[in-house]
Amino acid sequence: MSWPKEVTIKEVGPRDGLQNEIKMIKTEDKISWINELSESGLNYIEITSFVHPKWIPALGDAVEVAKGIKRNPDVTYAALVPNLKGLERALEANVDETSIFMSASETHNKKNINKKIAETLPILKEVVHGSLASGKTVRAYLSTVFGCSYEGAVDPDQVVRVSDALLEMGVSELSLGDTIGVANPQQVEQVLEILLKQFPKEKLAMHFHNTHGTALANVVVSLQMDITTFDSSLGGLGGCPYAPGASGNLATDDLVYMLNGMGVDTGVKEDQLQRAAAFIEEKVAKPLQSNHYKACQATRV
Amino acid sequence: MSWPKEVTIKEVGPRDGLQNEIKMIKTEDKISWINELSESGLNYIEITSFVHPKWIPALGDAVEVAKGIKRNPDVTYAALVPNLKGLERALEANVDETSIFMSASETHNKKNINKKIAETLPILKEVVHGSLASGKTVRAYLSTVFGCSYEGAVDPDQVVRVSDALLEMGVSELSLGDTIGVANPQQVEQVLEILLKQFPKEKLAMHFHNTHGTALANVVVSLQMDITTFDSSLGGLGGCPYAPGASGNLATDDLVYMLNGMGVDTGVKEDQLQRAAAFIEEKVAKPLQSNHYKACQATRV
Repeated sequence: MSWPKEVTIKEVGPRDGLQNEIKMIKTEDKISWINELSESGLNYIEITSFVHPKWIPALGDAVEVAKGIKRNPDVTYAALVPNLKGLERALEANVDETSIFMSASETHNKKNINKKIAETLPILKEVVHGSLASGKTVRAYLSTVFGCSYEGAVDPDQVVRVSDALLEMGVSELSLGDTIGVANPQQVEQVLEILLKQFPKEKLAMHFHNTHGTALANVVVSLQMDITTFDSSLGGLGGCPYAPGASGNLATDDLVYMLNGMGVDTGVKEDQLQRAAAFIEEKVAKPLQSNHYKACQATRV
Repeated sequence: MSWPKEVTIKEVGPRDGLQNEIKMIKTEDKISWINELSESGLNYIEITSFVHPKWIPALGDAVEVAKGIKRNPDVTYAALVPNLKGLERALEANVDETSIFMSASETHNKKNINKKIAETLPILKEVVHGSLASGKTVRAYLSTVFGCSYEGAVDPDQVVRVSDALLEMGVSELSLGDTIGVANPQQVEQVLEILLKQFPKEKLAMHFHNTHGTALANVVVSLQMDITTFDSSLGGLGGCPYAPGASGNLATDDLVYMLNGMGVDTGVKEDQLQRAAAFIEEKVAKPLQSNHYKACQATRV
């Protein structure tokens, strides 16, 4: 089997991890956490969201966070942007990259964005063009690629169509989301086979959730398909608001542990990652879900 | 990629899952649980251990359990046997198969069995020959194949030597244990490549722990190497006494969820497995660790 020599991990914890946290995290604590993450060797951190605070109150301090953090020149600091109004705030906060988002399934897109897919695309196009015009690259999150909580199975051809539209706009990377954590390795193989016929692998990143425990198994197959960019959230924070107690995002520390063990270079220092995990665990005031973190805590006792 | 059409899952929960439980489970509850498991489509259950109750008090009722359960003719009921005294009790209880155990690393073997490897092998040989003479097949658990809590890395050549000795005795299957849950997919590939040069794949089963979240990722690579027998414990019970709070055995329900999703036939009915999981969760009086179980519980709320 052939494994990539190195992998890029995109840390989404400060945005995807915290956006559904019931406990409000202080702005200064978010800033301290991002500063800790910036020292771990991660070279990409999605720090917040410029979605209107009415929808995501937990990230209402987006501008303050983006302006308050210490910028490490080796790190790209990105933020979620839903529309031109959000873009304006993101540019004011001087993020390095913007991220747009939509769903591959019509019903999930409607429930999440309150618009049809056909209505969403022109709005995103404005954001992409506005970002690029301001010298900011754009990443796109595509949700429900492997299944939808409302529609069930999602047609890979539909994923191709929407991906094509997003890349046509000028998006530099697509993050393919298993939003409800139902993907399995054989399905990942099938979907990637279809997508890789249409798009270069450098344009694709995987965003797995560990809801049913399969996230790292899906990473394995993706690595074998030569995908080298993965999203994750430190400690497994976030990702599954409708299922309290269930695991959400793939945990950065589990991913780093596995890849480092395999000799796949992530550039991430495990000890610093553990420090950042311990910091945020105290702030969210509940145990982190990641296996590696729990194992390290347990053996430390 | 090629995936096996079907896989055999060997349920070790009633033995490996319960042996370290602090809460003593009533004999009648163990019997009821095994009876539930027997209806799930699993065709192999390790029901108890005939290690002296001084060492494993939680399974001191081995004979009562083995005699009390309702035997489903489609299920093989196995039990752990450490020596001739244990074999005598196992034969009295009429188990279908005996399992012996030892470690690939010298220090772990010494700490666990209080004997050197060279001293352990003759005792196991007696058990194997005694079992076979009584018409009972024998399975062997080999611990610390992928790493040892005392010695760190374990030499695959040492694994080959001990495996060879066990198979020479007449053992019908070797269960290769990642006792401390440190294996990674690339290592699984390397170790299996070495072992499969020496032994037929039908003789090998994998026994992964999910301590660091990598168990299903390791299953994926094993499947690709055409291994088709896996040990697991319902709900992820057991497996890591020295690390309370950490995940232990690979959870049967996570494994079944992934394999069923991949179209790999396990013969296991998920709904009945969930019923058996809910039953034992109540008896151990603590939340099960398996992701799939937690996700199902959460969405049911």
